[in-house]
Amino acid sequence: MAQNDSLLFEALRGVSTDSLAGVLLKKGLSNQWVRGPMPMRLDFPRIVGRAFTMRFIPSREDVPGALAKKLLVNRDAVEAMPPGCIAVADARGTRDAATFGDIVVMRMAKRGVAGIVTDGAVRDRMGLLASRLPIWTSGITAPPPATRLMLAAWQEPIACGGVAVFPDDIIVADSDGVVVIPAGLADEVAAKGMEQERLDEWQIEQVKRGVPLSELAPMPEGNIKTTAKH
Amino acid sequence: MAQNDSLLFEALRGVSTDSLAGVLLKKGLSNQWVRGPMPMRLDFPRIVGRAFTMRFIPSREDVPGALAKKLLVNRDAVEAMPPGCIAVADARGTRDAATFGDIVVMRMAKRGVAGIVTDGAVRDRMGLLASRLPIWTSGITAPPPATRLMLAAWQEPIACGGVAVFPDDIIVADSDGVVVIPAGLADEVAAKGMEQERLDEWQIEQVKRGVPLSELAPMPEGNIKTTAKH
Amino acid sequence: MAQNDSLLFEALRGVSTDSLAGVLLKKGLSNQWVRGPMPMRLDFPRIVGRAFTMRFIPSREDVPGALAKKLLVNRDAVEAMPPGCIAVADARGTRDAATFGDIVVMRMAKRGVAGIVTDGAVRDRMGLLASRLPIWTSGITAPPPATRLMLAAWQEPIACGGVAVFPDDIIVADSDGVVVIPAGLADEVAAKGMEQERLDEWQIEQVKRGVPLSELAPMPEGNIKTTAKH
Amino acid sequence: MAQNDSLLFEALRGVSTDSLAGVLLKKGLSNQWVRGPMPMRLDFPRIVGRAFTMRFIPSREDVPGALAKKLLVNRDAVEAMPPGCIAVADARGTRDAATFGDIVVMRMAKRGVAGIVTDGAVRDRMGLLASRLPIWTSGITAPPPATRLMLAAWQEPIACGGVAVFPDDIIVADSDGVVVIPAGLADEVAAKGMEQERLDEWQIEQVKRGVPLSELAPMPEGNIKTTAKH
Amino acid sequence: MAQNDSLLFEALRGVSTDSLAGVLLKKGLSNQWVRGPMPMRLDFPRIVGRAFTMRFIPSREDVPGALAKKLLVNRDAVEAMPPGCIAVADARGTRDAATFGDIVVMRMAKRGVAGIVTDGAVRDRMGLLASRLPIWTSGITAPPPATRLMLAAWQEPIACGGVAVFPDDIIVADSDGVVVIPAGLADEVAAKGMEQERLDEWQIEQVKRGVPLSELAPMPEGNIKTTAKH
Amino acid sequence: MAQNDSLLFEALRGVSTDSLAGVLLKKGLSNQWVRGPMPMRLDFPRIVGRAFTMRFIPSREDVPGALAKKLLVNRDAVEAMPPGCIAVADARGTRDAATFGDIVVMRMAKRGVAGIVTDGAVRDRMGLLASRLPIWTSGITAPPPATRLMLAAWQEPIACGGVAVFPDDIIVADSDGVVVIPAGLADEVAAKGMEQERLDEWQIEQVKRGVPLSELAPMPEGNIKTTAKH
Repeated sequence: MAQNDSLLFEALRGVSTDSLAGVLLKKGLSNQWVRGPMPMRLDFPRIVGRAFTMRFIPSREDVPGALAKKLLVNRDAVEAMPPGCIAVADARGTRDAATFGDIVVMRMAKRGVAGIVTDGAVRDRMGLLASRLPIWTSGITAPPPATRLMLAAWQEPIACGGVAVFPDDIIVADSDGVVVIPAGLADEVAAKGMEQERLDEWQIEQVKRGVPLSELAPMPEGNIKTTAKH
Repeated sequence: MAQNDSLLFEALRGVSTDSLAGVLLKKGLSNQWVRGPMPMRLDFPRIVGRAFTMRFIPSREDVPGALAKKLLVNRDAVEAMPPGCIAVADARGTRDAATFGDIVVMRMAKRGVAGIVTDGAVRDRMGLLASRLPIWTSGITAPPPATRLMLAAWQEPIACGGVAVFPDDIIVADSDGVVVIPAGLADEVAAKGMEQERLDEWQIEQVKRGVPLSELAPMPEGNIKTTAKH
Repeated sequence: MAQNDSLLFEALRGVSTDSLAGVLLKKGLSNQWVRGPMPMRLDFPRIVGRAFTMRFIPSREDVPGALAKKLLVNRDAVEAMPPGCIAVADARGTRDAATFGDIVVMRMAKRGVAGIVTDGAVRDRMGLLASRLPIWTSGITAPPPATRLMLAAWQEPIACGGVAVFPDDIIVADSDGVVVIPAGLADEVAAKGMEQERLDEWQIEQVKRGVPLSELAPMPEGNIKTTAKH
Repeated sequence: MAQNDSLLFEALRGVSTDSLAGVLLKKGLSNQWVRGPMPMRLDFPRIVGRAFTMRFIPSREDVPGALAKKLLVNRDAVEAMPPGCIAVADARGTRDAATFGDIVVMRMAKRGVAGIVTDGAVRDRMGLLASRLPIWTSGITAPPPATRLMLAAWQEPIACGGVAVFPDDIIVADSDGVVVIPAGLADEVAAKGMEQERLDEWQIEQVKRGVPLSELAPMPEGNIKTTAKH
Repeated sequence: MAQNDSLLFEALRGVSTDSLAGVLLKKGLSNQWVRGPMPMRLDFPRIVGRAFTMRFIPSREDVPGALAKKLLVNRDAVEAMPPGCIAVADARGTRDAATFGDIVVMRMAKRGVAGIVTDGAVRDRMGLLASRLPIWTSGITAPPPATRLMLAAWQEPIACGGVAVFPDDIIVADSDGVVVIPAGLADEVAAKGMEQERLDEWQIEQVKRGVPLSELAPMPEGNIKTTAKH
Repeated sequence: MAQNDSLLFEALRGVSTDSLAGVLLKKGLSNQWVRGPMPMRLDFPRIVGRAFTMRFIPSREDVPGALAKKLLVNRDAVEAMPPGCIAVADARGTRDAATFGDIVVMRMAKRGVAGIVTDGAVRDRMGLLASRLPIWTSGITAPPPATRLMLAAWQEPIACGGVAVFPDDIIVADSDGVVVIPAGLADEVAAKGMEQERLDEWQIEQVKRGVPLSELAPMPEGNIKTTAKH
């Protein structure tokens, strides 16, 4: 994680996925919220990191001659993940086999992975809840990956929950789900996101005082002392 | 909320949505339970109120000339809601954009709205959980309404979760979801519902004593001292 | 149908829904193709007309006191349809009850309705196929409307197949389905659509001669003799 | 419950559904995890028991002459359930009417039923949460069974959540859902499952020490002191 | 097929599934049209017969010890079908494996089966189209039944396309799909259905003459010369 | 297309997808039939070829800075396709934007592509029907690809209709849909498939003579004169 990322991520940790989705929409990006994955625990902190993409396809039973070479699996991918990344799995919404299980997840935690996002499912709910690794998933299941899925590749452009994700896109995940920020737009989106947070705070303040919504805009400039929420 | 409503609502707060769905079925109404919305917190009280209906349609990108006049939005609708009403949103099950966000919800709370039911999603989960307004929703999301939805009208007949809802129908929502009582049947349904609650209590009592279910009916009249659960 | 419409419609009858969807996308309108409805016969001509919108909600069993007044039904709506309009029904994708049956459709034909689009189903397949009225539907069914649907209103903004439709929007339907053109953009979209048709023709001509696609753009201006297909 | 079952069940209570799904897959059984049902509480213990199957079909309105004889209902089935069994309901994923309600569930608890699995829904969430009976369900609802479902038979082969279940198959349910073990394979699967649990524990131990996953297999024999988790 | 059936079926062959669905709805039966199956050819005649029900469940891989006894398969069931019956398969909507293939269907034709209804799929489209047996199916597929399905039983109450079907219910299928008439109501429904056909014909006649729909009801008695369509 | 392929393909053109799915299942491959795509015309010949895979992901609106480099599009991929290949598109079942349109398809035909399989949709139905290129598709639509899809890569392992497809797998498509044969198994599967065809022909012959299915197996060896159907 570069120095640059460190400042950017610090800023983004103060911006909700709601505000980010709003800012991205204003820039014409209407499809950046990932359908499906929700946090396994509501007390996870908001996480920010660069996407390490993983692409799964349906499994094919293991038959001599069916495939020329051995496929790589999760445990191979894990060793390629840089610290601080967020693993984003394109599992095509498969809910009846896991994309990740507890042993792989524990290794990911050891390697400093910042979090996991899958549009499929994970298994060993209690083990994962006990671990400290923040996970956003579309479901819980018991069967191992090979039941339905094969890892086809990593660090390729993928889809996750109906959204395009490119390697190194910025992922932000909190209690409202997961938003994907194109790498080239990250600084601008972070800046606009912090502004939006300040506006929201001011608006909530006003509403608490009984001001009707029609009288809320625009926020008076200069008067704002608030800083982005953390 | 008329005096009349006050007594009716008091009665209905003692009747579960289960009992109401059963009573409505006996009257030939088989489609009064709303598919999708569940309470954001399990400790919400049962809520009762008249429906303030809101109708959403898919959004159309903002292009000069596309529409003759500005569309009304949530913040306009909120000011038209009478105290004690329950806002019921027909969002066509849209889960990738919110029907309500925290600022609008806070204003609704200020205005005395009794609760929210949406067959779509809401955003800012933590803010909404922190607020005191009881919300039944089909999902949590980050994107703002305009990403996918436009408010087309309010106080029209709508569908919510596959159920017809007319303005001023009686809405009852608890931990088993949301039931819609046609306005003209409310008194009768409330009365029958209270009876059903008494019967359920007596049956549970008998089952606890080890009586098989085949010996449960009919409930002996006159012996019942129990009153409706609260 | 005004004189104006007559020229506009004549132009649009020479533009495919494909070209229209492409032109609308270039203008930033990405959601104008209606999901579901397909023509009942592949030999229907392309039809063009202004939308007469109809809005259905789930039916509620007929119980005394449930509703204050009689609901209007299809046969009431039909008499309000102007000649040349296209009836567009928001049936919420309901496939197990019809939005239209043969008797109502025959009356619509008598009144000069230009066509029907429904995101639900129609019934009496053979009767409808025999009739001359062009119909785009998402399914065929046997049960009458009242089994699942009530007509809530007409000439209101609706959704049809996931697309917003306002009364008097321009509907174009052909063998690739149905496209909705916002009324205020119709002239511009028609003009651009005719250009697109010419470009397509030129490109197909080039491809037939063996030119690779990479060498196709731009179309040489001045050389084009072709006119829009009819 | 035979003596035999008692030992088998004791063993299986130490094996997670994850390990069982993995063992079954290695034996060529790839479709033994039930799609849909999840535990109503995360603190339920893992339950093990023989399947008492129940088969539901869509309800048909009660019309004189429609059916020759009275259908049996839940309360009849309950009295046929042996102590220690797990009731497994094939509700075809119906979520808008309950397969079980609180009174029937309380009677099942009285009769010593070990748990409930339904691919449909249950009603009276708070009552069921308060009861001690462990329930795996695909949803919560308010309407009673008759709204959409009739009990067609019990102790027949059924499907539950896309999986074949035969009477007396072994059901294991925990926080990752429900796995079905064919009766004839139970001893072998239990033995292999206990081995798998030991392997998992050893692997997790190694991962905690920082061993990469590629160096994990095989587990060194003889060194293992650990016993199956409980 | 009893003498009685012969007259009843003759009458029902003159009544469309539309009219039957309408008549059944008036008697309070709102769920008798089967979702999914459509005729493989539009020129099939309307077919009428008693239901021979078949019930499929998901397949379980063939493992020694998994099942105590050999399961019966389609070819066993076929020999139990009486001439004139309509085979109705509950395949739970499975579209990626066939419920019937061409060899079994050819044998069914030989045995005098009147038709097939499946809420799943069939395979060998060209062979089946070439055969004379009328088939209503939800899809076409290539894989054989065992890929996903096992025959669990026949002549039991089943669900087909979301509708309860009891052995010996009357099945009517035409170009608008399949309707199930409870055995005990067949005579009454047939009589009412013939009346409805006459009313429809009269109404269509009137509409052709330009009479608005509001003036159509009631049909003048005594003037009707028409008989049921064939 | 190698000499080898030429003989293999000739053999496979005599084997139905039904027989191939059956043979693959016997070899333990249960998931080789592609869900969704059906032929646009029923009179297409059976096609056989090696898969040229194309992988689509959801589109991202075109924003400066969002992506570092220009994405390749269909027209780039087309020039990389070898004569005789079958283009297989992983469109994730997207039905509201095309994977292919008429101009690209015409160029594919020019280049000698043998056919197209997409689990998404195509556009310009009439143009494609008029072309000679056989197409298996899950739907027809009007919007161009960019509305919802971007081409991410070609000749990578993909999923199509829930089935893994590797570059150079053998694709066979006929009126029952599309089957994928792993490249390494092709010769064996072709041989077994031809046997199966002969068995089917013999069985149908027997059934036509009135032999019950129980007496059909095994086929008497030596007596068979028939050859594979073409």
